[in-house]
Amino acid sequence: MTESFNNEEKDGLYKAIFSRRDVRSHFTSEPIDDEIITRILTAAHHAPSVGFSQPWNFILIKDNETRKKIKESFILENKKASELIEDPKKSKYLSLKLEGILESAINLCVTYDPTKFGPFVIGRTSIPEAGIYSVCCAIQNLWLASRAEGIGVGWVSILSNEVLKRTLDLPEHIVPIAYLCLGHVTEFAKKPDLETEGWLSRLELDDVVYYEKWEKKQDTNWKKIQELIKENIDYA
Amino acid sequence: MTESFNNEEKDGLYKAIFSRRDVRSHFTSEPIDDEIITRILTAAHHAPSVGFSQPWNFILIKDNETRKKIKESFILENKKASELIEDPKKSKYLSLKLEGILESAINLCVTYDPTKFGPFVIGRTSIPEAGIYSVCCAIQNLWLASRAEGIGVGWVSILSNEVLKRTLDLPEHIVPIAYLCLGHVTEFAKKPDLETEGWLSRLELDDVVYYEKWEKKQDTNWKKIQELIKENIDYA
Repeated sequence: MTESFNNEEKDGLYKAIFSRRDVRSHFTSEPIDDEIITRILTAAHHAPSVGFSQPWNFILIKDNETRKKIKESFILENKKASELIEDPKKSKYLSLKLEGILESAINLCVTYDPTKFGPFVIGRTSIPEAGIYSVCCAIQNLWLASRAEGIGVGWVSILSNEVLKRTLDLPEHIVPIAYLCLGHVTEFAKKPDLETEGWLSRLELDDVVYYEKWEKKQDTNWKKIQELIKENIDYA
Repeated sequence: MTESFNNEEKDGLYKAIFSRRDVRSHFTSEPIDDEIITRILTAAHHAPSVGFSQPWNFILIKDNETRKKIKESFILENKKASELIEDPKKSKYLSLKLEGILESAINLCVTYDPTKFGPFVIGRTSIPEAGIYSVCCAIQNLWLASRAEGIGVGWVSILSNEVLKRTLDLPEHIVPIAYLCLGHVTEFAKKPDLETEGWLSRLELDDVVYYEKWEKKQDTNWKKIQELIKENIDYA
């Protein structure tokens, strides 16, 4: 484990990071191989977790009745969202494909259990939200492993968590974090859909990096880095 | 981007996932190459984000005055934490090395800005927390890229976010999500420190996977997967 990575291994990681997409449109009906699902879940389960609390659970879903209920919730919440904006933004919003609940091979709900190994969890005493952050790290592992296995993942956050909890029989204390759609795809898009659609642009790296303090852009400690970041070298 | 991964590329990703560690004890004083820092930040910036809102900022920190203030906050919060438990757990807790704030090459604060590209962000209307989840995905990308580059990362969550906000001049609406310590290491431990120390064990994958509904372990739809997961194949 102390060994370093050769260039091909590094490239494999970066390829997964840069070619991962939030997939909604390109799912096929081909089932996912059981070994692949197992590998993807194993990757998720090896995420970092605060105090090694491993506070995640994964609910695999194929059942169509469940999916239909979640899809109904999406339709309702999506309509509510569209009512927050005016045309032409509203029409543009309504034209976007934002989920693949029924057409993906499987759905997967990832949950957070704050009681696991509790109440005393190392690293969660001052910042209780750290438990939720661990679950998100597991989701990102799962997303990258899926990409490497050729499986598209779409995260549906336009739905009611109350409907989700009721539909999946989640106890009151369990927090649903993500509802994911997984499946083989005809393609992985070159860019995020919302970038292609002209909804938003990718920020430059320079826009999101500060030095020593909030909004501080100049600092002699970081001169070379500032240049590298501004040169905007495409490591992707 | 539609291309598939060959076995070496897949292995590179899985190697990063399985050998990544939360590092506290093995930092060296060797500086991190500026190009490596840039690559790591680029990986973070290519995380998924709800509505493509890219709501993260990264504050790079070398300044010792800043670090000392954060370390003081750690010491105070760590003491408070230890007072929540009784011996022998308390002594064990106090013997653990839980941060590398002063001895790591750099510190990095990752923040969440809910106002970026707002107020209407696609996918954040029903579940506002989705913005924070995006920042956590960026942190996991950063963590994996660091591992591949031979850089250890430790997440310090035993501190006061109020002290952190004051020390880094964060505006009221900016939420600090992670305070990270990055640096070269003498080794990446084979297992998580808390597992080695006998604080907690890694759960079996079977313990965290359900089928169709919460706590449901048997379902004919998932027979083969159940077997594979119970066989506990070591994909790592």
